Amino acid sequence: MTPTNTTNTNRTSIEDTLIMIPGPVPVVPRILRAMAKPVINHRGSEFAELFNECRGLFADMFRTKNDILLLSGSGTSGMEAAVGNLINPDDTIATLVNGKFGERFRDLGRLYGNTVPIESEWGYPLDLDAAAAALEDGADAIAMVHNETSVGMLNSAEEVGKLARKHDALFIMDGITSIGGTEVFVDRWGADIAILGSQKCIGAPPGFAAVSVSERAFEKMKEVKKPPYYLDLKAHKKSADKGQTPYTPSIPLFYAVQEALLIAHEEGLSARMKRHASGATAVRAAAGAMGIEMFPQPDGLSRYSDTVTAMKVPHGIAFDRMKQEMLDCGILIAGGQAHLKGNVFRIGSMGNFKAKDILITIQMLESILHKHGVVSEFGAGTEAAASVLMG
Amino acid sequence: MTPTNTTNTNRTSIEDTLIMIPGPVPVVPRILRAMAKPVINHRGSEFAELFNECRGLFADMFRTKNDILLLSGSGTSGMEAAVGNLINPDDTIATLVNGKFGERFRDLGRLYGNTVPIESEWGYPLDLDAAAAALEDGADAIAMVHNETSVGMLNSAEEVGKLARKHDALFIMDGITSIGGTEVFVDRWGADIAILGSQKCIGAPPGFAAVSVSERAFEKMKEVKKPPYYLDLKAHKKSADKGQTPYTPSIPLFYAVQEALLIAHEEGLSARMKRHASGATAVRAAAGAMGIEMFPQPDGLSRYSDTVTAMKVPHGIAFDRMKQEMLDCGILIAGGQAHLKGNVFRIGSMGNFKAKDILITIQMLESILHKHGVVSEFGAGTEAAASVLMG
Repeated sequence: MTPTNTTNTNRTSIEDTLIMIPGPVPVVPRILRAMAKPVINHRGSEFAELFNECRGLFADMFRTKNDILLLSGSGTSGMEAAVGNLINPDDTIATLVNGKFGERFRDLGRLYGNTVPIESEWGYPLDLDAAAAALEDGADAIAMVHNETSVGMLNSAEEVGKLARKHDALFIMDGITSIGGTEVFVDRWGADIAILGSQKCIGAPPGFAAVSVSERAFEKMKEVKKPPYYLDLKAHKKSADKGQTPYTPSIPLFYAVQEALLIAHEEGLSARMKRHASGATAVRAAAGAMGIEMFPQPDGLSRYSDTVTAMKVPHGIAFDRMKQEMLDCGILIAGGQAHLKGNVFRIGSMGNFKAKDILITIQMLESILHKHGVVSEFGAGTEAAASVLMG
Repeated sequence: MTPTNTTNTNRTSIEDTLIMIPGPVPVVPRILRAMAKPVINHRGSEFAELFNECRGLFADMFRTKNDILLLSGSGTSGMEAAVGNLINPDDTIATLVNGKFGERFRDLGRLYGNTVPIESEWGYPLDLDAAAAALEDGADAIAMVHNETSVGMLNSAEEVGKLARKHDALFIMDGITSIGGTEVFVDRWGADIAILGSQKCIGAPPGFAAVSVSERAFEKMKEVKKPPYYLDLKAHKKSADKGQTPYTPSIPLFYAVQEALLIAHEEGLSARMKRHASGATAVRAAAGAMGIEMFPQPDGLSRYSDTVTAMKVPHGIAFDRMKQEMLDCGILIAGGQAHLKGNVFRIGSMGNFKAKDILITIQMLESILHKHGVVSEFGAGTEAAASVLMG
């Protein structure tokens, strides 16, 4: 058979592809190697040591004195653990939605209790007035996504936390794609449960979630009659006090997460935050120079995400072609989700990426856009990105 | 500080310890190395290929034409998926219990609907008459543990399947520690959902479960109103049809499982079953020669497990000492669970173990028992094991 699509035949092997999507992110060799350690007895003291080291390092990263529990499941399992352990069938949870992951809280709220969905248009700020009204009406809890990757926006967790405190409601914060890459202050913001996913800012492989749980949340759990079983946080807490998990943990992922946390610790949290902010700022600067519009519309309280940049697909090129040509050159970028498919594209600046990863992504994008006549002169985007990254 | 416990100071590093417990089992280097492959995009065709190869190889191993769904969670997550997706709050599920894992089905049944627990004394055969009566009374489903590792017994899944069919009830079979090590015929036995855990007979690391789901089970799921979210099998099925999972999969574990399944395929299922049976037979023969009693009391329909042997701790030595002295020599064995703690010890013959692993475990055990005067003459146990393994 004669190949009809020459781009496909030149395609770089998937294992050599630079993944610039908002998670799963590329995993550095040091973390990959950590997973190759032998499987140990998960009821022994060696596992307890590994387990407790991870919990301590997470507590620093979450800026919390709360208990940290570790789940062998994706970030979604952490979201379900939060809602399922805090919400009784008669309870009401206000769920703030301005993108795909906010919708997940809305659906989880419906499953475990009653949801008051507070929906903004995707990419627009959360409706804090409506949130205040729902709490005023007696909502028992409020849930939000801190960094909404589907639209590239960092929502104001601090303001939502203040509202929750004022109305004595529980506050659930999805920090899956913010914690470890963007400043998060779990205790200062009063998040009763905050959630992190392994394959995002800490740069480990997927399949692991960490949740911080406040005393207030543990108190409420005593009254919750039908929490999920595998994700029962009371059972996790009871085992964690002995340095264990209630069910067999995914040991290789614990090794990977330990190594990822050590890497973050060595880099320093503040340097890590700066690196993430610089990556996203560089992408935005390049987009501006190339005449590409941002998708989200942050106000003063929300802002552009530090870990993923969502842009409108420019006129003159279809997203599928742009994505395929990037991939042919060995770089994977992300499209829009749900109704944003085809209209939005996203570039991650998440995990253990380096300045060179951002720069080559921009350079390649600019080359392709230039080839297709979308950008009239090559160089402005790349230069703008470089000046941020090297500045 | 002067070490007071000299055995501890001579202790072999945990990474060099031979793990002879009924899972997690040691993971061979080929599988460990597979996990070090780069993380790929879980929405791309390369992941779909990996995903579908695993599903096909599992179907062969389960002896089923049913759909195979892959969960990023432990075996317990598979048990919850089975019960939570098939049982409505008004439904009744009969749960057969003769050990610790049967109790888990009982508890899950209570969480999602009504349980009729059918409890035998631990280590005694399942009460099939009581099961028939519960089904006669209208139970909608029945759940059982095929290989009950807590007591070292292989329960009769075929008979339970027949009862379920006769009464048109759904049949859930926990094959977590049997499938891949012992003959299982999902279709012939009529298991609507059968469950496997990665860290058991296939010899991969923990954190992954595979479930087979019949058409009948999918039909029932349409009526189930409150399935768990992360473990929603309808959502998993919908994604699986596109070669994906609904939430981010634990990619390194998928690599590991793929490699583990290829190893099992290369060995051949029938040779693999024989090896497992031979391992357990060798342990039983050695126990007999050393005057150690078996814990379980199988009848004609149930039998001793092929993947773990549960024995009574002999008079003249405490389990903790026996375990510690084995560990000092670099071998980890398992104790009894719950009320069997101190009275029962267990040796696994599970996963990619070799004859030498069984033999050295027996030899070391016999040496220790001989040293403590429990066994008067050294050699009979080792010889009995060797003659089975080499036979």
